[in-house]
Amino acid sequence: LASSAHDHGPPSSGEPGRDVILAAAQQCFFQYGYHGTSIRRIAEVAGVTSAAMYYYYESKQHLLTDLLDRFMTFALRRTREAVEKAGPTPAARLAAAVSSHVATHAEFGPGSFIVNSEIRSLDEANRHRHIEQRDQLQRIFDAAVVDGARAGDFVVDDPADASRAIVTMCTGVAGWYRPGGKSSQEQVCGRYVRYALAIVGSAR
Amino acid sequence: LASSAHDHGPPSSGEPGRDVILAAAQQCFFQYGYHGTSIRRIAEVAGVTSAAMYYYYESKQHLLTDLLDRFMTFALRRTREAVEKAGPTPAARLAAAVSSHVATHAEFGPGSFIVNSEIRSLDEANRHRHIEQRDQLQRIFDAAVVDGARAGDFVVDDPADASRAIVTMCTGVAGWYRPGGKSSQEQVCGRYVRYALAIVGSAR
Repeated sequence: LASSAHDHGPPSSGEPGRDVILAAAQQCFFQYGYHGTSIRRIAEVAGVTSAAMYYYYESKQHLLTDLLDRFMTFALRRTREAVEKAGPTPAARLAAAVSSHVATHAEFGPGSFIVNSEIRSLDEANRHRHIEQRDQLQRIFDAAVVDGARAGDFVVDDPADASRAIVTMCTGVAGWYRPGGKSSQEQVCGRYVRYALAIVGSAR
Repeated sequence: LASSAHDHGPPSSGEPGRDVILAAAQQCFFQYGYHGTSIRRIAEVAGVTSAAMYYYYESKQHLLTDLLDRFMTFALRRTREAVEKAGPTPAARLAAAVSSHVATHAEFGPGSFIVNSEIRSLDEANRHRHIEQRDQLQRIFDAAVVDGARAGDFVVDDPADASRAIVTMCTGVAGWYRPGGKSSQEQVCGRYVRYALAIVGSAR
């Protein structure tokens, strides 16, 4: 079950050797969790020697950190670019952020699962940096919701709470979306944009 | 981090010996995951002998299954009772289901985390039963949304999709809600009811 439906790797690093190791780590963490996986097992799944493994990563912690960092960097860049292209209205910016966030979590389901389940396994400094990245992403949504509320385009009691509910709802797409299912990714993105605009009481 | 903010155990079994073991298993799975935890470690955390452990559970798999089963049974019963008391209109039923679901995931954060992250670790028959329970819960929401759409109380393109988005959004409360934070549980429940009614285009 764990690996069959969704077997694409994390966003590419551009280095084939590293990509093979990152994909193997993602698969192992997705199936057995960080603490249920040894770095030796990851090397076996990747089909690389211990020497090759240590050339890229000196520890399992470095590997988890790099995996989460690549996911968050990808998600942040994609959402920022989408919002910049979207035009100035808060509704357009929120729609672009939602669509981009849903697409990332639909396309990278196993990566999304690890981001959501293994923050606990990061060392303190790495966890701190991860949470900072997560907060940056949340603030893109927050800014659109706050601006819309100020402009009177949105009717919302607590912008930060609504913004968090939207991000959580979109992240949850990773838990059920499968390519080739009933709805296309574009349809899902379109629906979630409508849900998000409804949550913030968009007047359109 | 993992155990400090949220250290209440799973719903009580009514047997003190069993409750101690279930609470220890929850704490271990929450921090290290199922595959990162041994049954011996759970016995140590619970402060019980191996004999006592095996009196209640013959394997780690039985323990995980019982933990998830108790959570789902509790969540299902609570949501069913809330909906039955809510009165006949689809909006009232949806509001009751949302409020109950948010309350469960706010009150039992670590249990919610394990339900969401360790379905992968259930044996096939146990997983099958768990997914059946999850589907039963989802159908309570689905029925309210479908009835509201038919009655013209809700305006929604795809009731099943909207219903799933609502459940996912509410489940996500476990990831950030902490007792004693900025908002009371009642305030959070109230806001999520409004978000859910907005998602289904409730005319009120």
